[in-house]
Amino acid sequence: MKIPGAEFALIDCYFTAQDVRRSDVALGIGDDCALLVPPVGQQLAATVDTLVADVHFFAAADPEGLGHKALAVNLSDLAAMGATPAWATLALTLPKADEKWLGAFCRGLFALANRYDVQLIGGDTTRGPVTVITIQAHGFAPPDRALRRDGARPGDCVYVTGTLGDAGLALAVGFGEATVADKDAEYLRLRLERPEPRIAQGLALRGVANAAIDVSDGLAQDLGHILERSGVGARLDVEQLPLSPVLLASLDRQAAITTALASGDDYELCFTVPSEQVERLERLAVNWDCRCTPIGVITAEPGLRLLQADGSAFRLEQLGYDHFG
Amino acid sequence: MKIPGAEFALIDCYFTAQDVRRSDVALGIGDDCALLVPPVGQQLAATVDTLVADVHFFAAADPEGLGHKALAVNLSDLAAMGATPAWATLALTLPKADEKWLGAFCRGLFALANRYDVQLIGGDTTRGPVTVITIQAHGFAPPDRALRRDGARPGDCVYVTGTLGDAGLALAVGFGEATVADKDAEYLRLRLERPEPRIAQGLALRGVANAAIDVSDGLAQDLGHILERSGVGARLDVEQLPLSPVLLASLDRQAAITTALASGDDYELCFTVPSEQVERLERLAVNWDCRCTPIGVITAEPGLRLLQADGSAFRLEQLGYDHFG
Repeated sequence: MKIPGAEFALIDCYFTAQDVRRSDVALGIGDDCALLVPPVGQQLAATVDTLVADVHFFAAADPEGLGHKALAVNLSDLAAMGATPAWATLALTLPKADEKWLGAFCRGLFALANRYDVQLIGGDTTRGPVTVITIQAHGFAPPDRALRRDGARPGDCVYVTGTLGDAGLALAVGFGEATVADKDAEYLRLRLERPEPRIAQGLALRGVANAAIDVSDGLAQDLGHILERSGVGARLDVEQLPLSPVLLASLDRQAAITTALASGDDYELCFTVPSEQVERLERLAVNWDCRCTPIGVITAEPGLRLLQADGSAFRLEQLGYDHFG
Repeated sequence: MKIPGAEFALIDCYFTAQDVRRSDVALGIGDDCALLVPPVGQQLAATVDTLVADVHFFAAADPEGLGHKALAVNLSDLAAMGATPAWATLALTLPKADEKWLGAFCRGLFALANRYDVQLIGGDTTRGPVTVITIQAHGFAPPDRALRRDGARPGDCVYVTGTLGDAGLALAVGFGEATVADKDAEYLRLRLERPEPRIAQGLALRGVANAAIDVSDGLAQDLGHILERSGVGARLDVEQLPLSPVLLASLDRQAAITTALASGDDYELCFTVPSEQVERLERLAVNWDCRCTPIGVITAEPGLRLLQADGSAFRLEQLGYDHFG
């Protein structure tokens, strides 16, 4: 029922043209399975994420950026686990075999893969009415050193990398629901289309953070997963949320904070650090290529409380825009 | 950009309700990654396959059968590698969150997973205009014992498990291009919708077969991959192809052989056995729950030659029906 030959022709042309050749890949693309040699004494971290055209990205989006992002969102999950990236598979459903699109997609995918020494070890290319991209990524972490969601403890300081809300604003601009100055458009586009997985940060947080998650669905929701799995609550100071100059220049205070809390696609790390590790973290973070901002504290009392500078509660309304719903 | 909450609600309800709890799964569904403990001294086999509605299956197909088949096609790849199944991930794109559909899909998926002690260790559920099912399966094989496509040698005997062409005929019936007796319809439907991965056979072939592949795109094409990767050819006796009584009763000889050679979705194993292992294979196969049929020989001369009983060439025409193209 597959298109005879087409699947293989696509794979041969594009997906085997990668520079990375890892020594722990005994057999790569081209057989019924890949054969891999996991490192002794490490756990294997595995994650899978799907991007669907006109749900997770605009169908006309730049394919090079899409290749980057499809892998980046998976590497972001490895980062949130404190895992070292290693292997990926790609299941790609396409309306047609567009060579120009495929070439650009692979450029974006492999440019990011090469930077993190990730080898594409398998895939399945199928025809379908809409573009669907599923990547599974694998990495390694030492036993009991991985950053889980269930390790947050009362008194932990809550941190977040980078800035929040830029991708949400970029999306609103894309839908014509917000406007930004011309000079800021490129910055925003890159924040949405080229998220940078915080791999180095995730590795540095091993033995430092009690819990971590990547912010893909909005800080409030993703931090909520840590709280739920850890059986704790949190109090955030919304004035401390790291906001980019572009976000601050484009939205009023209320909307900027709401976007930072509730919009998705930022792919920053949110993590909790016990007080005795805070000094160590602050020393580590000096050398990071992104901000590292304390935004609140884990509490024994369940629930997420959002406080303003004067101690009053910040009311998190539903975002005004509801995309791709 | 995801539908807030919906993804998690779906996963919680259905995909964590599995009986299998493997001791080598340190952390299953519910975190950024699963954490796995691969067995020391084994290679990890990984494969990924996608099924797209109205490309690989009818959108109205029985969801329980679909759950079975989506996993079965991946387990079939593990079987063709001689690997022991262990873990799977599921990336599921659905037009709507249909609880009845999801429940039946999971029943089919987990019934098969439980039989082979496969634990679902991760997933991503997304909304999209069409159902797309991507499963990645992992298994284990001892180093240098896996069944690759590139090991066939001249003089090897070519074998195939089960019978060929039943799924192709079932598909033709589904499209109204062929008819079968009422009493045969159920047999054919099961052959298409409930393929049985030949896991036991794949494991038994370790150290016996030189090369193996699973027949998903038709014997001629899939055996062709072995020939190409091994740098050899093959001569098949088309009269020896294992055909079911239903196929023989429904099609004339020419069409039956053509269907056996060129139609897909059979998920039988095709493998090559050196002459000194043939006796051992024949002893092993006595206990199999499927046929095991010698159909030809590997040759030093490249190419696939199809011979009839009188020594004349069998002309493999394109199948009369070209589905989902």
